[in-house]
Amino acid sequence: MAKFMDVHRGMKGVTADQLREAHRADLAIEGDESVHFEHAWADPESGIVYCLSEAPSAEAVQRIHERAGHPADEVHAVPLEV
Amino acid sequence: MAKFMDVHRGMKGVTADQLREAHRADLAIEGDESVHFEHAWADPESGIVYCLSEAPSAEAVQRIHERAGHPADEVHAVPLEV
Repeated sequence: MAKFMDVHRGMKGVTADQLREAHRADLAIEGDESVHFEHAWADPESGIVYCLSEAPSAEAVQRIHERAGHPADEVHAVPLEV
Repeated sequence: MAKFMDVHRGMKGVTADQLREAHRADLAIEGDESVHFEHAWADPESGIVYCLSEAPSAEAVQRIHERAGHPADEVHAVPLEV
């Protein structure tokens, strides 16, 4: 298992309810790929959402986001953390 | 105070020691701007570093990063979090 940060763009105007609902949709199916989405942070002004997860691969992260209806624009392994 | 995510690019090959040292340099002066850098995550392969902070403004975040020798390429307020 490894840590990943993924980035969604084009989410201008995203609301707290929409972020919560999107996260809930990920959590509902993440177990199918042994992914766990830990946190998400959103900037409604620039339309960027960052998601931090633990997962076996970037592809597994993306498959969950795709099935939940919101594919990521970038998925990066972040093996270093402070 | 608000939450911010900032992004540094061009850090290919960054090591755990370099990330720790860069974070330490931020922590040493962050109080001057009432900023607190909570976490940083790095992808040595793509050269991207993400930093999560609490701060009074994006400008305050950037001023600390600049003085510490590593200006961010983007600083985004992230008022929404799950």
